[in-house]
Amino acid sequence: MRTILVIGAGRSASSLIQYLLNKSVEEDLHLIIGDLSLESAKNIINNHPNATAISLDIFNEFQRKEAIQKADIVISMLPAHLHIEVAKDCIVYKKNMVTASYISDAMQELDVLVKENNLIFMNEIGLDPGIDHMSAMKVIHEIIKKGGKMLLFESFCGGLVAPESDTNLWNYKFTWAPRNVVLAGQAGAAKFLQEGTYKYIPYCNLFRRTEFLEVEGYGKFEAYSNRDSLKYSDVYGLNDVLTLYRGTIRRVGFSKAWNMFVQLGMTDDSYVMEDSSTMSYRQFVNSFLPYHPTDSVEIKMRLILKIDQDDIMWDKLLELDLFNPNKLVGLKNATPAQILEKILTDSWTLQPKDKDMIVLYHKFGYELNGKKLQIDSKMVCLGEDQKYTAMAKTVGLPVAMATLLILNGKIKTSGVQLPIREEVYLPILKELEEFGVVFKEEEVPYVGYNA
Amino acid sequence: MRTILVIGAGRSASSLIQYLLNKSVEEDLHLIIGDLSLESAKNIINNHPNATAISLDIFNEFQRKEAIQKADIVISMLPAHLHIEVAKDCIVYKKNMVTASYISDAMQELDVLVKENNLIFMNEIGLDPGIDHMSAMKVIHEIIKKGGKMLLFESFCGGLVAPESDTNLWNYKFTWAPRNVVLAGQAGAAKFLQEGTYKYIPYCNLFRRTEFLEVEGYGKFEAYSNRDSLKYSDVYGLNDVLTLYRGTIRRVGFSKAWNMFVQLGMTDDSYVMEDSSTMSYRQFVNSFLPYHPTDSVEIKMRLILKIDQDDIMWDKLLELDLFNPNKLVGLKNATPAQILEKILTDSWTLQPKDKDMIVLYHKFGYELNGKKLQIDSKMVCLGEDQKYTAMAKTVGLPVAMATLLILNGKIKTSGVQLPIREEVYLPILKELEEFGVVFKEEEVPYVGYNA
Repeated sequence: MRTILVIGAGRSASSLIQYLLNKSVEEDLHLIIGDLSLESAKNIINNHPNATAISLDIFNEFQRKEAIQKADIVISMLPAHLHIEVAKDCIVYKKNMVTASYISDAMQELDVLVKENNLIFMNEIGLDPGIDHMSAMKVIHEIIKKGGKMLLFESFCGGLVAPESDTNLWNYKFTWAPRNVVLAGQAGAAKFLQEGTYKYIPYCNLFRRTEFLEVEGYGKFEAYSNRDSLKYSDVYGLNDVLTLYRGTIRRVGFSKAWNMFVQLGMTDDSYVMEDSSTMSYRQFVNSFLPYHPTDSVEIKMRLILKIDQDDIMWDKLLELDLFNPNKLVGLKNATPAQILEKILTDSWTLQPKDKDMIVLYHKFGYELNGKKLQIDSKMVCLGEDQKYTAMAKTVGLPVAMATLLILNGKIKTSGVQLPIREEVYLPILKELEEFGVVFKEEEVPYVGYNA
Repeated sequence: MRTILVIGAGRSASSLIQYLLNKSVEEDLHLIIGDLSLESAKNIINNHPNATAISLDIFNEFQRKEAIQKADIVISMLPAHLHIEVAKDCIVYKKNMVTASYISDAMQELDVLVKENNLIFMNEIGLDPGIDHMSAMKVIHEIIKKGGKMLLFESFCGGLVAPESDTNLWNYKFTWAPRNVVLAGQAGAAKFLQEGTYKYIPYCNLFRRTEFLEVEGYGKFEAYSNRDSLKYSDVYGLNDVLTLYRGTIRRVGFSKAWNMFVQLGMTDDSYVMEDSSTMSYRQFVNSFLPYHPTDSVEIKMRLILKIDQDDIMWDKLLELDLFNPNKLVGLKNATPAQILEKILTDSWTLQPKDKDMIVLYHKFGYELNGKKLQIDSKMVCLGEDQKYTAMAKTVGLPVAMATLLILNGKIKTSGVQLPIREEVYLPILKELEEFGVVFKEEEVPYVGYNA
C-alpha cells in the first residue's frame, strides 16, 4: 500500500482525487486528504474505502510533520506561497512532492538539497503552467531532433465558458479565481519579443494591444500579453528565437470592454475606498467620475469613455447592473478591485448547468534545410459539469499522473523541476488524450510574427 | 556667536545660505556648511568670513555627531529619507532642527522624545510643502476667527518656466529634480473630495482629468490632481469640508501631451530595458509600439495615440527629437523612466539666461452668517537667474527664516511639527513679502466646486 497525502481539497482537487481513487485498487494506493475544513476533505472523497479525510492546518507544525511523515509522496494544492513549509518537511522526511504552481525563488533554492537527497519536487504541472509546458516542449524537442532551428514561439491559453453556456455580452464567466481575473496584468509591464525586437506594454495599454486567433469549430478569439514572456527563453531553450510571446485568451471584444474598468481605476487593489460597505453600485461608479451637480453618472461615464449610444460597450456595462442605486456593495474597507469582483460575480458566476472550456494554442516557427516552416498546435477541452470542470480536469489530472509516475519510478530525474523532460511529458500527454485533452498539430505556412 | 549647521549644499541651498550670511553680522551667526563635496560647500559660501565649509559624510557617524554637537541648530537639506539619522543625533545633543521635507513616519515617531527634550523639529517649511501650508493656514484661521465655516479648499502649486523663457511647445522646462517630474503621479491613485463625494483617479487617467486656473497677467494654467488630498483634512482641521483638492500646475496642454508617455509606458520605473545603452531614441520609442515589417515608427505612433497630422501633439513629440535613429540613450540597465528623463533633459534644461517661475493658487470657500463666500489667494514668484531661482528662493528662504525665529526664541512650541501655527506663519509670510513672495487675496463669488 502506497500512501499519497493530498494537502488542500479545493475545487482544483476534484479530478485529481477522482483519478487517484479510480486507480487506487490497481495501483495499491491509499489517499489521505488533508484540509483545514474536515468537511471539504470528507466531501471530496465521498466515503471511498481507499481514502481518509483529515483536518490539517499547515501552520500547525506538529500536524503537518505528522501527516507528511506518514506519506510516500505529497501533493500540495495549497496557494502557491504556502508550499514552502511543506517542501522543507518533505526534505526532512525524504518525500517526493508535486505542485501545480510556479517555482518560487524559495522553492528553487531548495534544489541543491532536493538533489542531495535524491528527491523529485515536480512543480508547474497543472494546466498553465503545466500542460502548456508539456505540449510546447514535445513539439520543440521534435523540431530540434529533426535538425530544425526555432525562430518563433507564441503560446496562448485561456479559461473560458463553453459555447453552449456562453450567455452574456462579455462572452465570459468566472471559471477560476475571480480575484486573479480582476488583478490580471497588474504585476508590471508585459515584456515579449517580436521579430528580434523587445516590446513592452504598460498595464494601461495591455487590453488594447491584443492578438487574434482562430480555432476551427470554435471561432475567433483574442489574447492579451502575459507578464514576462522573456523568461521562457531560458526555460524552453529558445535563446535565439526572434519571436517569443505568451498571452491570455478571451473572446473577441472582452479586452476592449475590460479596458473600461482599467481606465476608470476600478481594478486598483492598492487602496481602500471610503464608505465601501454602505456604497451603492452606482456610487462606486461615480467615485471614478468627475463631480457635477446635475449631470448623470451615465452621461459622465459615456463622455469619459467616449461611448456612443449605439456602442455595444454600453450594453456590456448595463448588463452588469453597474448603475443600480439600490444594490449595495456591502464590503467593509474594500479596494476598488474587491468591489468590482463582487459586482462581476453577480453576473459572471457559472450556473448549475454551465460548462467551462479551456483553449490552448501554440505556434512554432522554425527553419529546416533552409526552409521556414510552422506548426500550430491547438487544444480545446470542455467541462463535464460544475464539479468536473475543464479547469479542474486540466489542472488536476497532470498532477495526479505525475504523482503516479514518480511513485512507480518512471520519472527518475531528481531536483526541483518543471515538466520539460520527455520522461515526464510523453506519458502524461499520451494519457491525457484518454481524458479528452487532445492536441491537434498541423503544419501551416510560416508567416513569422503576423501583425 | 550662534552656530548654524547646514547639511547639504545642493541647488536648493543657495538662497537659504545667502539669506543667513546676509544676516550673519546683525544676528551674530556663524554658518558651517557640510556637504559630501567640500568643493560644493566652498562654492556656496564664496569665502564669506562668517562661514566655514566642511566635508561631511552623513553616513560617517563620527563626522556627523561631531558636526551636530558643535552647532546651536541644524538645517538638513538632505534628501528626505536621510534626515532621520541627523534627527536622532539632534535629540542626543539637544539641538533644534529644520527641514523642508514631508514628515516621515520615522520622524513623527520622534515627537514624544522631541517634546520631552523641549526641542523644536520644524519640517515641511520650504515651498510645497511649506509656503502652501503657511499661506493656507493664515486664511483658514482668519475665516474661522470671524466665525466662518470652511466648505471648500482647493490648492494648486507648480514650478514652471518664466514667460520670458518659455520657448518650447510644452511650455515647460525642468526647474527641479527631473526624475520627480517623470515619476509624478505613480505613487498610487489620486484621492480627493468634491462636494461631499470621494473621488479617485488612476494614474492612466490622471493627466486627462485636469482643472483649469487663470492668474491675472499670467494667463491660463491647468492642474492635475496630487496623490492624496484627503490627508490634509486632519492637518488643516478641515474635517467637515465638502471639497478638498490639491493639484500640480502646468501650462494648458502639458498634461494631454504628457499622457502620451504614460499611455505608451515610457514613465515606468519598475523594470530595466534590454540593451538600453546601445539603443537609439527611435528604438526606445519603437519598444512601446507593435512590431511591423514595413510600417514606420512614426505611423505606428500616430495610430496608437490617434494623432492627426495637424495635431500639435505631434509637433510636441518631434520637438523632443524622439524619432532620431542616431542619438543613443547611452545608459546601462536603464528603466523607461530613466531613458525618458534623459531625452527630456536634452530639450528641457534651463539655459544660462532662463528664469523659472512658481505659481501658487488657493481657493477657500466658506459660510458666514448664512452666506456662502469665497477667497482666492494667488502668488507668482519669478527667479532672478540660474542660481537664485524662484524655486531656490521659495524653498530656501522659509527654512532660513524659521531657523532664525527658533534661534531667537520667537517660535516656542516644541515637537515634530509643520508650519501651521501663527507664531510660525505670520512672521515668515510677512518677511517673504520683502523678497517678492506676495500673496494676492481677493473675495470672489462662491461657486463651490466649479466643474
